[in-house]
Parts: sequence; structure tokens; C-alpha cells
Amino acid sequence: MATVECTVDGEIATLTLNNPGKLNAIDLGMWRMLFENLAKIAVDRSIRCVVLRGAGNQAFAAGGDLEEFLTARATLDQALHYHGQVAAALQAIADCPQPTVALIEGACIGGGLEIAAACDLRIAGHGARFGAPINRLGFSMYPGELDGLLKLAGPAVVKEILLEGRILSAREAYEKGLLTRVVDDAGVADEAYATARRICAGAPLVAAWHKQWIRRLQSDLPLSEAEKAASFAFLDSDDYREGLAAFFEKRKPVFKAR
Amino acid sequence: MATVECTVDGEIATLTLNNPGKLNAIDLGMWRMLFENLAKIAVDRSIRCVVLRGAGNQAFAAGGDLEEFLTARATLDQALHYHGQVAAALQAIADCPQPTVALIEGACIGGGLEIAAACDLRIAGHGARFGAPINRLGFSMYPGELDGLLKLAGPAVVKEILLEGRILSAREAYEKGLLTRVVDDAGVADEAYATARRICAGAPLVAAWHKQWIRRLQSDLPLSEAEKAASFAFLDSDDYREGLAAFFEKRKPVFKAR
Amino acid sequence: MATVECTVDGEIATLTLNNPGKLNAIDLGMWRMLFENLAKIAVDRSIRCVVLRGAGNQAFAAGGDLEEFLTARATLDQALHYHGQVAAALQAIADCPQPTVALIEGACIGGGLEIAAACDLRIAGHGARFGAPINRLGFSMYPGELDGLLKLAGPAVVKEILLEGRILSAREAYEKGLLTRVVDDAGVADEAYATARRICAGAPLVAAWHKQWIRRLQSDLPLSEAEKAASFAFLDSDDYREGLAAFFEKRKPVFKAR
Repeated sequence: MATVECTVDGEIATLTLNNPGKLNAIDLGMWRMLFENLAKIAVDRSIRCVVLRGAGNQAFAAGGDLEEFLTARATLDQALHYHGQVAAALQAIADCPQPTVALIEGACIGGGLEIAAACDLRIAGHGARFGAPINRLGFSMYPGELDGLLKLAGPAVVKEILLEGRILSAREAYEKGLLTRVVDDAGVADEAYATARRICAGAPLVAAWHKQWIRRLQSDLPLSEAEKAASFAFLDSDDYREGLAAFFEKRKPVFKAR
Repeated sequence: MATVECTVDGEIATLTLNNPGKLNAIDLGMWRMLFENLAKIAVDRSIRCVVLRGAGNQAFAAGGDLEEFLTARATLDQALHYHGQVAAALQAIADCPQPTVALIEGACIGGGLEIAAACDLRIAGHGARFGAPINRLGFSMYPGELDGLLKLAGPAVVKEILLEGRILSAREAYEKGLLTRVVDDAGVADEAYATARRICAGAPLVAAWHKQWIRRLQSDLPLSEAEKAASFAFLDSDDYREGLAAFFEKRKPVFKAR
Repeated sequence: MATVECTVDGEIATLTLNNPGKLNAIDLGMWRMLFENLAKIAVDRSIRCVVLRGAGNQAFAAGGDLEEFLTARATLDQALHYHGQVAAALQAIADCPQPTVALIEGACIGGGLEIAAACDLRIAGHGARFGAPINRLGFSMYPGELDGLLKLAGPAVVKEILLEGRILSAREAYEKGLLTRVVDDAGVADEAYATARRICAGAPLVAAWHKQWIRRLQSDLPLSEAEKAASFAFLDSDDYREGLAAFFEKRKPVFKAR
């Protein structure tokens, strides 16, 4: 059955897109499960990083579940509901206070590409491939979903993907700013979890603050005096004292998220 | 004589910048012809993709026609008129409902670079070169023309081009986000037209919608409820029904732009 | 003693970050000296380009001076003052009417990376390395400083740097849009000054105008009629007449910044 599994190993949660026999194509239930799992993770202070991946190594996710489009996305009301759920799941990834890492093997297409683009970092194998050839299916990408891709890679890359319907290799996707890193297919899980551990070695509050300020700065509104002051919240944190102390004592810091 | 020729082969229109003996340098008449040709193409529903190129294979276009600057862009009134015409032509490329592909061989300089940047996709040969060394001519790029380049490649790349006056190789231009793809010089026309055919294999309305939403999302204004609903216009199109049907029947779709 | 030295050779000023034994880590006094030197350069019409570099070839600058954080950035008031000074220095680089070139050897970390990002062009040696691993120090980057990095390289690259705390090689930094050019370590000074000379070969007013319009276009406000007219200020300049005349006479132009 189509599902999004959540497993936790120490400080790292893994969300696995799983739709057997369909290259992990994402159906409405999976979008909801993605949202619900992230809502739980967001308030779980024991988790410091989230890895998103597909089950098996043939696909991250090969797109939406097209069969379902015939029944669950056939009318305007259905479409607004369906893509409202998709938008909520993508927003939950983008808003997740913990850093998110997409671990990408094989096909990363359509909705799969949207999920990967919403993550903070993207580690892919050389054999992975990227695209959204929906121009040959006769429908356009929902603007609310297109936006994340556009902010990540810019209009020229999005036009190549959507107008030409082209499937990019991992190398091309890296060159065009869609990926953080490309490694051998055999090593992609190792590198993604090593990345997650490097994230966990940093102060968790600092990660959440950095995500918050990067999001805030996407808007062109100037920072208020209150925001400037709020950006020094770290001065009162135990973790800042620990970070500097560990640096001067030449030891590894131990952060407690407070 | 300096001209912009329009030829049509099936669903693909080609606009050819042609100024013999001047590496296709663009004069005021050519900017106007570019605009007029695009106005016709925009309402011609038999055309599904536009290729822009230079005559011959020595240049896409080597810039503006500098001799004309002495007579037709010497006063403020002339300059406002001249660059108003340039802006109209570049806007007509950007607003063209059909996808546009720049086929780039040789020099792609100044106004040529501006035209290429306004296209949706850019396919260049390895021997092509890119720049706008107008700092050595003593004038600045019109801000309205600079904007397209800036949105394509970002401030750092534009500063390298304008402040250093540097000419970039096709490889560098690709690495810096100015190009969609670089191929052997002998194969650039083949690849550009293959790209155009891949575009024509998609649903024409979907291409127009994607261009429209990508443009709309450049503004930071949130989508209205009316816009969200409008983004599902495809649900009522014949082409969407055809697209899904062809997918499930494992055949090539036949789109009719309705 | 920690200092920022200003030397002038012909039309090129060089600002050298110098903090011996600390890999040119930048303290509050150096941020102030950076600001003051740039204020003088901005009004010195004999200077046409500014090169920023670190003393020696082990570091551009390895970050802020952390020891000082314990005494001069310990309270909110101190932090607001400290980062107000940093912001003023970075703004002075960004607003400098003359083009700025960062010459980068060795470590370019934290505040060093912020300075490099504020320059117009960045020339680095292959052995240079880039990052801001402050997540392991327990503090977040001041949003006002983060902004320049974000405008240069986009959110995905900034997240890799800040969330993963990763140190990028020069090659990676180039691929991710952080650098203008990467050359052999032995040749980085030669290339940076060759770049400065290419900048000096252009009309100085044109460089200042290009910087001004690129900055202006970062805002989405449409250009006013007055701004459009102002963008043709070059028509009345001696340098424009000289630039066109030199072009038609096939000689090198001599620009006088008027």
C-alpha cells in the first residue's frame, strides 16, 4: 500500500516515500501522511535533522499518481482540494524547523522533484534523473508548487524542465543549481546520512534561526529594529556559551537546544 | 540590407537576424521588424515554437549598429525613442505565448546577448562568445534592457560582463547560468531544432500557461483565489483529456491547442 | 597589530586585511578601518578600481575575531553596535562607486566570506576554501550580513554553508556561483590585478552607472520616467564621445571620468 514511513535513528528522522510497483508515485494519501509526519517532527525536540527518500533505489518519487487524477482531481473543486493538500505538505517541508536532506536515487520527477526542491539540501546519485514532462500529459504545474522550484533554480532552468519537458541527468541538475552534491550511486545514502550527522553536530537552535532568517530575507521588506534585536537571541542561549567555550578549549561542543 | 526574416516550417517559426558584413549587428529597423514579426507569430495558432538565430554561422548578433548611434541615438529624445523600440522588441520576445529558442553560433554581444537572454531557452555552440564590452565605448546599458540579463544570470555575472567588459566562452557562459546547453559548433542547429520539436510535442496551451505562471511568480504578490482557480483551466481542455488518455494507452498524444 | 592597509598604485587601490598570527581574522577595529578607507576611496576620483585581499597567502580572512566576542559582543547593546559597524563596512563595499575585486588565497571564512560576497568580482586560487561553520560555535549569522551572501548565491548554497557548516573548495564555490573565476594559486594575484586593469580600461562613469543600475534593479519597483531619462546621462559625457570616436578610429580610448 502507498505510504510515507517515518523511522527515527538517534537524532535523525527518515521519511520514506513508498508506493510499490509505481516508482513511489505520490498519491493524495501520501501527501497527507507527509504533512502529518512533518507536523509531529516539527515539535519533537529530540530530532535534529530529517532525511527524505524513496523506498528502494529505483526512485525518489516518479511523480503524482496519474490514475488518481481521473477520479480525485477531475473537477475544479477536487483540484483545489488536491493541490491544497500538496501545498500544505510542501509548506511543511519548507517550514520544518529542523534541516531537511533529500536523499535521491533514480527517478525524481514531478511531485518528487517538488518535494526535493522544498528540502534544504539535496544529495543525489549520478544515475538520478530530474524533470516534470507534464507538457506531454496536457496539464500545467500548479503555480503554488512551481514557486519552490523557481526560487531554487531560477526561470531558465524551470523553463527547460517545463517547456521542453526535458529529463536532466544528475550532473546537469547539479550544474543548474538543482542539487547540493552528486556522488556515486552506491554512496548516496552514506553521503546523505553523513550530511545529516554534520547538521546534527551544529547547535539546533542556530539551524532553526538560520532557516527562519533565510526565509525572512526572501522578502524585500527591510528588517525592523525588533527583528534586528531578535536576531541576537543566541546571546542568552546555553549553546552559545558552550560553542565558544568548546572552541577555546579545542574540544567538541555538546549542544542541548537551549 | 539589414533585416529580420521570418520563415515557417510546419509548427516552427524561425526569425533570422541578418545584417550582412556587420556580424548581424542590430539596427533600429531590425528591432522594429523583430517586434512586428513577433506580434504576428503571437496570434498565429499554427506556430508552436519560435527559433531566433543569426544569418550565417559567424554571429548570432554582434551588438547594436554603432554607426547609427551617431545619428539616431544622439539626443535624449532620440535615445528614449530608440530604446523604447528595443524594449518593445525584447518584451515581445519575453511575452511571446509560444516558447522561444535562441540558436547561437559565434558572437552574441550587446543587443544580441539581450535578445538571447529574453528567449526561454538558449542552445549555443562551443565556439560562441558572450559579452557587452560597452564600458570601452563609454556608455551604459539601458536599465530596462539590463533587467532581463539580471533576472537570467544574477548580479555577479552581469557585473563581470559590464564592469570587466569580459567576453565569456560558451563553456563559461553555461557555467554561469547564461545558457541552457552547449554543443559542438557543427551540431548547434540540429540541437536547437530538436529542442523546438520536443517543445512542439507538448500541449501548446500548457506551454503558454507555464510561461504565464513563471512570469507571474516573478512578482512576490501572493496568488489570489481567482488565480488559483484559473490555474486549473486545463481541466476543461481537450488536450488534457488527450494527454492522460494517450499516457494510459501508451501512445503519443495528438494535441490541438484547445 | 590588526589593521586594514590601503596602498595605491596608479588607478588601483588595494585594501589589505592584516591580522598577523590570526589568519587575518577581522576585529572591530578592522571593520571600522575598512569603512573609513572606503569612504576616502569613494571620493577619490584618481582611483578607478579597488582590490581587497588578505596579507600573506594563507588567508583572505578566517572570520571574525572570536576572542573579542567574549568582551565586545557579549550583550545585546554591544552586539547591535558591533554588527552595526560590520553592516556599515559591508555596505560601503557594496556602495563603492569604483568596482571592487576580491583577491582570494587560502581561508575565506565567516566575515571574510561576507566581505568577498560584497565585492563586485571574486578571483580565487584553487586552494582557497569557503564557509561559515558557526553552527558549531552556537551563533547565527546576522541577517543583515546574510543578505549579501543570499543575493549572490541563493538560498540553497547558503543553507549548505550555514546548516551543514560545510567548507567548500574553490571549485565547488565557483560551481555554486560564489566566485567569478578560479585560477592556479600561484597566479591569483596576477589575474586579480589583470582584472582590475581591464576594469580601469573602461570609462569610470560607466562603471559607476552600471553599479548603480544593477543595485536599483534589485528592487522590483518599475523605473520612473525621470530614471529612464537619467540613464542616458552618458550622452552628454566627454567619455562617450571619446569611446565612439576611438572605436571608429580603431584606437584605444582615453577616458577622463567626465
